[in-house]
Amino acid sequence: MSEKRKIAFGIMLQGPGGHMHSWRHPSSPVDASVNFNFYRDTALKAEAAGIAFAFVADGLYINEKSIPHFLNRFEPLTVLSALASVTSRIGLAGTVSTSYSDPFTVARQFASLDLLSGGRAGWNAVTTPLEGTARNYSRAHPEHALRYEIAQEYLDIVKGLWDSWDDDAFVRDRESGRFFDREKLHRLDHKGRFFQVEGPLNIQRSAQGQPVVFQAGSSDAGIGLAGRHADAVFTNSVTLEENKAFLTRVKQAAVAQGRSADEVKIFPGIGPIVGRTQEEAEEKYRIIRDLITIEDALAYLGRFFDHHDFTRYDLDAPFPELGDIGKNSFQSTTDRIKRKAKEKNQTLREAALDVASPRSNFIGTPDTIADELIRWIEAGAADGFILGFPVIAEGLDDFVDLVVPILRERGYFDGELKGATLRENLGLPFRESRYAAPAATEEKARA
Amino acid sequence: MSEKRKIAFGIMLQGPGGHMHSWRHPSSPVDASVNFNFYRDTALKAEAAGIAFAFVADGLYINEKSIPHFLNRFEPLTVLSALASVTSRIGLAGTVSTSYSDPFTVARQFASLDLLSGGRAGWNAVTTPLEGTARNYSRAHPEHALRYEIAQEYLDIVKGLWDSWDDDAFVRDRESGRFFDREKLHRLDHKGRFFQVEGPLNIQRSAQGQPVVFQAGSSDAGIGLAGRHADAVFTNSVTLEENKAFLTRVKQAAVAQGRSADEVKIFPGIGPIVGRTQEEAEEKYRIIRDLITIEDALAYLGRFFDHHDFTRYDLDAPFPELGDIGKNSFQSTTDRIKRKAKEKNQTLREAALDVASPRSNFIGTPDTIADELIRWIEAGAADGFILGFPVIAEGLDDFVDLVVPILRERGYFDGELKGATLRENLGLPFRESRYAAPAATEEKARA
Repeated sequence: MSEKRKIAFGIMLQGPGGHMHSWRHPSSPVDASVNFNFYRDTALKAEAAGIAFAFVADGLYINEKSIPHFLNRFEPLTVLSALASVTSRIGLAGTVSTSYSDPFTVARQFASLDLLSGGRAGWNAVTTPLEGTARNYSRAHPEHALRYEIAQEYLDIVKGLWDSWDDDAFVRDRESGRFFDREKLHRLDHKGRFFQVEGPLNIQRSAQGQPVVFQAGSSDAGIGLAGRHADAVFTNSVTLEENKAFLTRVKQAAVAQGRSADEVKIFPGIGPIVGRTQEEAEEKYRIIRDLITIEDALAYLGRFFDHHDFTRYDLDAPFPELGDIGKNSFQSTTDRIKRKAKEKNQTLREAALDVASPRSNFIGTPDTIADELIRWIEAGAADGFILGFPVIAEGLDDFVDLVVPILRERGYFDGELKGATLRENLGLPFRESRYAAPAATEEKARA
Repeated sequence: MSEKRKIAFGIMLQGPGGHMHSWRHPSSPVDASVNFNFYRDTALKAEAAGIAFAFVADGLYINEKSIPHFLNRFEPLTVLSALASVTSRIGLAGTVSTSYSDPFTVARQFASLDLLSGGRAGWNAVTTPLEGTARNYSRAHPEHALRYEIAQEYLDIVKGLWDSWDDDAFVRDRESGRFFDREKLHRLDHKGRFFQVEGPLNIQRSAQGQPVVFQAGSSDAGIGLAGRHADAVFTNSVTLEENKAFLTRVKQAAVAQGRSADEVKIFPGIGPIVGRTQEEAEEKYRIIRDLITIEDALAYLGRFFDHHDFTRYDLDAPFPELGDIGKNSFQSTTDRIKRKAKEKNQTLREAALDVASPRSNFIGTPDTIADELIRWIEAGAADGFILGFPVIAEGLDDFVDLVVPILRERGYFDGELKGATLRENLGLPFRESRYAAPAATEEKARA
């Protein structure tokens, strides 16, 4: 009997991959971001390998400098729903903004995905950093702190709506004509600072109770939101130490809200590149890195700084002084870029290439990568990993063929999905309704 | 070679069916409205029979008096997307409100469904009659005329966003690294009375150009909207003569907007009940009618009148005087109910049962039903029909087994879907981009 901690994996489905020009890679279909068969085949491969969920990120604003495959991509809820009916076990999570949507609609769409997938839905609640989004939505862009205040209330509402009907509310007795028990119907009657939502929601709870709530912001406000609401948190911290510190802060924030530390799972984002030898891995990395030009790299860098035009600076001079540019968007990312440029005395060229084609710390042989994953898990720096392969076609194949067998052999990974719901496969308990009687809850826990 | 006009059919997927208590019918799964396998099997059966599209209606507000299976049902975009990946030819249309959503999000979600289904999406743009909806959406309910003004602008925006990228905009040349041609990218820059939407949309056009736009309102404002924007219109007019008059008005409204009368197709809603003999059909109708009680019938009637409480009146006295109740919701329906009650001297009981379990004029033998459908088509009263079976499980089987063979034999129906896109299967042309050069458009028309 193994006492080893199991590693849960998710995989980002983002067209050809995480690298800005992954569409140019020989293993990618050039139209990967709008090729449903590619999404389906990738999801099925991940499911067969025991990866717990597929995750589709999103953005609501583009301009011609955006990452090429972001210009033309599926919307998360529709593509996840299309995947739901051709997969059977893998979780299906997607990003929807709390700043540019209605809680009643979003609660319904995720509840519907959750129900039709048999309890496999997840919602990554983001507050949307990109200011340009406001210009597509007839409104002003809320600043950072306000966005998180809106998100807190928004999540209260959505979770409240999800509990509109008790699990045994629908009697459906053909003989008597009794369809539901009105004692088991709950109207939310939310009246808050930003929203007034009466309810009830017109859809029942799912096999996992409620969709899994993901969160990704790593600012103080983001951690506050995660502590109160998130079942799982993505992070782009780079080192084991940074991740461990982040994990500790999020779990403390959860405990401060009266939750258990186990109720929130931390998923660092990693982009493994695997070779049979270290040289082969390095060669694969170089091929990917060289898909990009310096012009692309500057545009990519600009994306984090409100599409700031970096072509006006000397490429080989020190990284420029930017003041408050980008402060209201990807704040933790821009802070990190500026800090690193200063610490390492980077030129603009070096910083741009570093950001656009970052060197992952998961480039290596199957054994070194498996060792590193296990080291993070054993150190308590992560509960699992979200795999954002720079090039998904090549990356997933290599990972499944080369790394997964080692993790299975060492007892850290099952290599198959044993649960029917996403919560089960993440080691999260069934989400009880807020209206469930404590006795009923205890009974279920014993069962 | 037949010169006969072909009949196009759609089918409403509304859980167990159109009848308020269809869930009680022996042929229905009691949980039909949240049973994805039932949706899938029904859609596949319809597709195999040559039915051009499945349609999922919607509502954004319930209370305990709502139709039972409306209390708990899938959201249209998610269930249609889930159907997209398990069907291959049938069109997939759904309702989304223009009064309670954002045009950028709705444009994207339908464009995404359209792309992942290979050009089979349709959007039924409704303005949402139910006042209670406002209480789920933190806002005031716009009155009837205003809702249609919003809808006109909303549809201008969505159609504009759908043309953000020319059909040949995505070059995707791996060698040169050129992903798209920026001359073929169009920013909408809409600044209107209700919305400001910059664009572009982050998704390309589909195999049918744009999703098919459906419309259902039959007021003057509804017909105005249809004339400008709709590719297809649903109507619940009852007689051939009413339908013919309605069809003529909508096509005239389209022509007044510079469109061709053929560019907008009219689909009366019908609820056929087929028996091998007239007696068998009547018996099937009685079984369905008797699923309802007078209490249910009063509640159902109240739904059209802002959930007015009809239990306070004498059941056997003449239909009560209601003044302006319900004027801002389902206006054309409430007008018809009141007119009919007056004309036929109905008591409240009679009017309620008549509304809740209406007697379709398509109850009969396969031959009489086929005759009637052909009569409507030959009289120019319809381009097709939307099948809203009172009980879908029994109704679709009977229609496919008994009526379809007769229509095929008589040359009015193909019994198979010959087109790959919804537009093709409705006899609608590929939707050219507003930016397409006239020469290119002509070239395509010749091809």
